[in-house]
Amino acid sequence: MKVLIYDTTLRDGSQMEGVSFSVEDKLRIARRLDAFGIDYIEGGWPGAVPKDTEFFARLKAEPLQHARLAAFGMTRKAGETVEESALLRYLLEAETPVVTIVGKTHSRHVSETLRIPLDENLAMIRESVAYLKAHGKEVVFDGEHFFDGFKDDETYARACLSAAVEGGADWLCPCDTNGGALPHEIGETIAALVAAYPQTRIAMHPHNDGDCGTANALAAVRAGATQVQGTVNGFGERTGNANLVPVIANLRLKLGYDCLPEGALEELTALSHFVDEVANFSPNPKAAFVGRNAFTHKAGLHADAISKWPRAYDHIEPSAVGNQRRILVSEQAGSASIAQKANELGYALDKKSPVAKELLLTVTSMEHEGYSFEAAEASFELLLKKATGTYRRFFELVTFRVFIGKRACDTVPVTEATIKILVNGEEVNAVAEGDGPVNALDLALRKALEPAYPQLKDIALTDYKVRVVTTGEGTAAKVRTIVESTDHHGHMWATVGVSPNLIEASWQAIVDSIEYGLLKA
Amino acid sequence: MKVLIYDTTLRDGSQMEGVSFSVEDKLRIARRLDAFGIDYIEGGWPGAVPKDTEFFARLKAEPLQHARLAAFGMTRKAGETVEESALLRYLLEAETPVVTIVGKTHSRHVSETLRIPLDENLAMIRESVAYLKAHGKEVVFDGEHFFDGFKDDETYARACLSAAVEGGADWLCPCDTNGGALPHEIGETIAALVAAYPQTRIAMHPHNDGDCGTANALAAVRAGATQVQGTVNGFGERTGNANLVPVIANLRLKLGYDCLPEGALEELTALSHFVDEVANFSPNPKAAFVGRNAFTHKAGLHADAISKWPRAYDHIEPSAVGNQRRILVSEQAGSASIAQKANELGYALDKKSPVAKELLLTVTSMEHEGYSFEAAEASFELLLKKATGTYRRFFELVTFRVFIGKRACDTVPVTEATIKILVNGEEVNAVAEGDGPVNALDLALRKALEPAYPQLKDIALTDYKVRVVTTGEGTAAKVRTIVESTDHHGHMWATVGVSPNLIEASWQAIVDSIEYGLLKA
Repeated sequence: MKVLIYDTTLRDGSQMEGVSFSVEDKLRIARRLDAFGIDYIEGGWPGAVPKDTEFFARLKAEPLQHARLAAFGMTRKAGETVEESALLRYLLEAETPVVTIVGKTHSRHVSETLRIPLDENLAMIRESVAYLKAHGKEVVFDGEHFFDGFKDDETYARACLSAAVEGGADWLCPCDTNGGALPHEIGETIAALVAAYPQTRIAMHPHNDGDCGTANALAAVRAGATQVQGTVNGFGERTGNANLVPVIANLRLKLGYDCLPEGALEELTALSHFVDEVANFSPNPKAAFVGRNAFTHKAGLHADAISKWPRAYDHIEPSAVGNQRRILVSEQAGSASIAQKANELGYALDKKSPVAKELLLTVTSMEHEGYSFEAAEASFELLLKKATGTYRRFFELVTFRVFIGKRACDTVPVTEATIKILVNGEEVNAVAEGDGPVNALDLALRKALEPAYPQLKDIALTDYKVRVVTTGEGTAAKVRTIVESTDHHGHMWATVGVSPNLIEASWQAIVDSIEYGLLKA
Repeated sequence: MKVLIYDTTLRDGSQMEGVSFSVEDKLRIARRLDAFGIDYIEGGWPGAVPKDTEFFARLKAEPLQHARLAAFGMTRKAGETVEESALLRYLLEAETPVVTIVGKTHSRHVSETLRIPLDENLAMIRESVAYLKAHGKEVVFDGEHFFDGFKDDETYARACLSAAVEGGADWLCPCDTNGGALPHEIGETIAALVAAYPQTRIAMHPHNDGDCGTANALAAVRAGATQVQGTVNGFGERTGNANLVPVIANLRLKLGYDCLPEGALEELTALSHFVDEVANFSPNPKAAFVGRNAFTHKAGLHADAISKWPRAYDHIEPSAVGNQRRILVSEQAGSASIAQKANELGYALDKKSPVAKELLLTVTSMEHEGYSFEAAEASFELLLKKATGTYRRFFELVTFRVFIGKRACDTVPVTEATIKILVNGEEVNAVAEGDGPVNALDLALRKALEPAYPQLKDIALTDYKVRVVTTGEGTAAKVRTIVESTDHHGHMWATVGVSPNLIEASWQAIVDSIEYGLLKA
């Protein structure tokens, strides 16, 4: 059985407190979801949010490959014609194959919050859907507060969906807008809609306010819904939207639904971490299916059983979703996975060799200090090169100095870095100004290195992230910086630095980044 | 209808990575759960865990008031008698009214991990239960891997429960040990057990590996289970146990079950935060019912509706669980939500006033530059004070300089900040060293201010966050810093700064933080 997945991370998900996607972020996520095999990607609300308008404009030049792009909006307003509706015009201007419009379906909301006649709301739904259909769109009608409306005034709730059907809607998507419905209610209501509208496909848009978002999505599908709307990692307002990560894994692995292209499910963990990374969140270690702890077992009873029967305490095989089983407090498992990683990167390393054991000690003690190599594989590969004797130094630091000065009349401080390094035994000096201390230091280092290593011109820093590792000490807390770089072949790598001093942490990550780039060039 | 709540935070919950309760911690949590009105509190595994043995010993002197205390353990081992069983002896020595013992119910686990005859396992269950019953205990039999066993070998799974019934068990508690069962399976299986064992009460022990822990608990209760086992905040191995917080709230508020004493539900948020506090975790802002964001609204549309109908976008009244509604100021907010937020903060502001409209323009244009006030309410309140004429300046910057220098021999750079400010018309200079440039600047500013404002000593910076707002420009990207501060009353506030220059962004957030603290002091 086929179920279509509709992702709204970029629209409803971006409502989450602490999320603020740039247009670039949105494009990166859209392309990743597209490559992963999501069926529908809702990009935003054109017209209402300027960034979203730009996002749709940027995608016109280079459309998505697999997914159908959806623009989100509202029905026309009360008292205007569809032709007069600015909201609908923006939706058409986004030039997406799919348009999703929300309309009220709870009579009390129509009377008390919109404060318009009930019939006018029905006309708004019918005419808006028909107008979008006349312009060739695939139309999803999102019924706001449908489940509460259905309980409170079933006749009117049904009338709203019927208005959408009369307008020609391709999908009826009842929304559990406040997220409080329970799975059995969702199942019963969806089954009633499937029976009532045999010609129109039924979708479901659940939220997680009762901590039943995943179960609500599954209940809807089991009752006959053929589209599920949600977000990666459950991003969204309040407690979040339904989390597509466990929804997809459960649909595929537990219920046998066809909802992803062949092979995609194994990318689920990577997708989940990628979206967190772009949003600058630490991935939740307890996340179902994809969390670092999802298949982690403490030594003892379970670990012993697992050695006899690997899946004894896991509900699925972790590799099915691209995750892995972890046994804690087991050095053997540690050096095995280090060796595995090394082999993956093309280094021959036996898990029982002294080199592997020493490397494990180094990695463990660095992780204890706050380093994290999950998102900084290039720094791990440099450690591996050092351990296996394939590392090479390109320069040595003699000294650097960074100066930042601000007077009352400056909007931005003056920032200058000077550096002295040894390159092939010779002292080289350089000075650079930058937008900030890290930028100035990076520029100065490059200036000093480029005469000896002109290939550095092809290496660019593309992203820079800072996270406080230990909290509770104010600005004296330890910081971890991650630097992402690319070369002109589009090869990308990330490096890490940790220190109580932000400049030192950044320096480490920049040095790793440049050394890695030069070693690979 | 009555449902009994069985808390295992102190036993199964303490298996979570990162949790390490002291005996004192365990006693504090037990007393709090008892006062809250939990029916059963499982304190640990006496004998197996020395801390747990001590915990039970300490409770003998001062027993719980309301809850029935449970000790957890296992059946006797294969080949020994119940009288010889050290495991059972420890359970009796704990002197608890309730004993919960786990036994295997999945035939493959008996054969492959225990490696004993299937009949011996049945005898272990029957005899162990009977022995505990003969000592006057209320006995809960936990059937390990029951749901998988029931699917794989239903006859044997039922035989295990029947053995417990023959021994005189008060409760049959099928465990979804690996947490992968879905709600419809749980419901069907529990209904079958309720029918099969009309004389014995049925409990349920769900985990969250499929992200359905809450829904699984509810499905079991709807199918006839009258006891639910779980942990506060879903503590537990891997993805955690079923989270009693949403389970209780849903049972009480959505399904009308009687599961708590009158008035207790309003303490749910406090209980959840208390347990996180003791375990040293930051409460999850997205937690259903009790999270800081659970009833937080950001969109302009929603905020406007809420002003007309407070519960319009909430599934329950937040105060029912001791939580509260919050309106955020954001990109998508209108002047209505600005006015509402201002009123919430105690400022009289009409949404149609020129002040509200100008403030909206300021906020919108700052957000466009990368500011975010969602997590920095104090910076918003300063804007509000400026707009309404209640702001006051405490100092003016003349100049600051930050110097960072590193030589080859330094592991950490030397970092020094000097500052010159005008305080009440007089120039004050100060210099400070710090762990990093931001720390040094913060310390220098405080040194310069403290003679005039000694109350600053009570204000401490507690957290510092940095994120890059625009990506794709490497280290030249814009950064947003968030600074969190507290005073000695435990009042906490957060401020924001944005600039391409990290030091400038941090400076803005620090200045806001100190100004806000002084205005409130």
